[in-house]
Amino acid sequence: MIMNNKITSRKNEKAVHLKKLGADNGYRRGTGMFYCDGEKLLQEAVKNGAEIEMVFTCTELSTKLPDNVPVYETTYDIIESISPMKTPQKVIFSCRKKPAQLKSGSGRYIVLEDMQDPGNVGTVLRTAGAFNVDAVILVGACADPYNHKAVRASMGAIFRQPMIETDLSGLKDLLCDNNIKLIGAALSEKSRDIREISLTNCAVAIGSEGHGLSEEFLAACDELAIIPMDERCESLNAAAAAAIVMWEMSR
Amino acid sequence: MIMNNKITSRKNEKAVHLKKLGADNGYRRGTGMFYCDGEKLLQEAVKNGAEIEMVFTCTELSTKLPDNVPVYETTYDIIESISPMKTPQKVIFSCRKKPAQLKSGSGRYIVLEDMQDPGNVGTVLRTAGAFNVDAVILVGACADPYNHKAVRASMGAIFRQPMIETDLSGLKDLLCDNNIKLIGAALSEKSRDIREISLTNCAVAIGSEGHGLSEEFLAACDELAIIPMDERCESLNAAAAAAIVMWEMSR
Repeated sequence: MIMNNKITSRKNEKAVHLKKLGADNGYRRGTGMFYCDGEKLLQEAVKNGAEIEMVFTCTELSTKLPDNVPVYETTYDIIESISPMKTPQKVIFSCRKKPAQLKSGSGRYIVLEDMQDPGNVGTVLRTAGAFNVDAVILVGACADPYNHKAVRASMGAIFRQPMIETDLSGLKDLLCDNNIKLIGAALSEKSRDIREISLTNCAVAIGSEGHGLSEEFLAACDELAIIPMDERCESLNAAAAAAIVMWEMSR
Repeated sequence: MIMNNKITSRKNEKAVHLKKLGADNGYRRGTGMFYCDGEKLLQEAVKNGAEIEMVFTCTELSTKLPDNVPVYETTYDIIESISPMKTPQKVIFSCRKKPAQLKSGSGRYIVLEDMQDPGNVGTVLRTAGAFNVDAVILVGACADPYNHKAVRASMGAIFRQPMIETDLSGLKDLLCDNNIKLIGAALSEKSRDIREISLTNCAVAIGSEGHGLSEEFLAACDELAIIPMDERCESLNAAAAAAIVMWEMSR
């Protein structure tokens, strides 16, 4: 790691850069970088070989960083002014996004359509990592998986879980090219019990928190699956439904 | 429903009562009432026969209320001043908590120890309702299930899901009296694969988000269970782990 001059102004260009990474999805897209919060996450970044762009800290670091990572000492005030969190941790940093390719051939994928809560998106990444799902595919108006809340909820999975952002037509091409079946999770009369469906070489899709999968998406599915539940209950939490689907995939 | 005079002051005693129910766990305990937000939840309350104490609204209600429920027209400003939410809905109300008894005899229970996030607690209630878990048992320093965030995340399950709040010694007595096995979810070498354990007539416990089950709790368990996962992953989100456990119970 490289120790640099202390940063004492919130107008410092690196401080401004980090702040924008925390706040602005467009800036994250443009730079290919994202904002992270906390030393626990920094350890995960190192462990997973993430490309760490820079670290700001107002405390002694206990993480051993690679030699080429620049570290800037600063004050907690400045970290507070940079972070999108109300009470940020004492270490914040930025990393480069890693583009993911869909493995060709067989596999198991989870697809999210319009999942809007970044906490849910991050939780799905974490669960996908736990159950070795080959990729999380984000379709439509999902929350940015590099949003700081998603990054935090992923508990480090953001650094290793393959992830693809696309639209419905991109998804169809991807699955068709690799001969992968698309299964939609839906409370429909046409749905089959998920325990009776073969979940190898398939992508299972979960819809938005409020509305489930869109009509257009449902029409693109090869099959519909249901997680059987009490009839008084309209649905599960989206991240809980995804967890059960991924568990069934790996079961 | 009973239409009453318009409420025009935030110092009105009913407005103050609702505000306290939204903000203060101790006040909720003392009164046995809790605060709810939104007409969707109001519909769930009616459908589940909850005892609705009063409704504040600044819009036309589309829900058909029982005859004896008092409705107070007010302004959005006053609702904003009452609600613990940043952008509350146009309808808020209070309900009476319903005490739950553990059914004697066989059953399937989920136990939460020190689960601190009210969103997680509410999500567990929602999933428990979906999979007909007999009761959710809250032990130790869990988030209040009647916290407005938990109530909202429960998506109506708060009105029907049997729920017991106790401590570890109370839990032991309860389970012993009913001859129910206590299983702790833990990433321990002594844990058996959850798929290999009989999950009838048992209570499965999930620990806190940061630390899992306490030593004291683990010592009280008859058996430990593990959800097998990738070794790079330290744990699942607590509500996701609970969802998989409850799915396995009902599977």
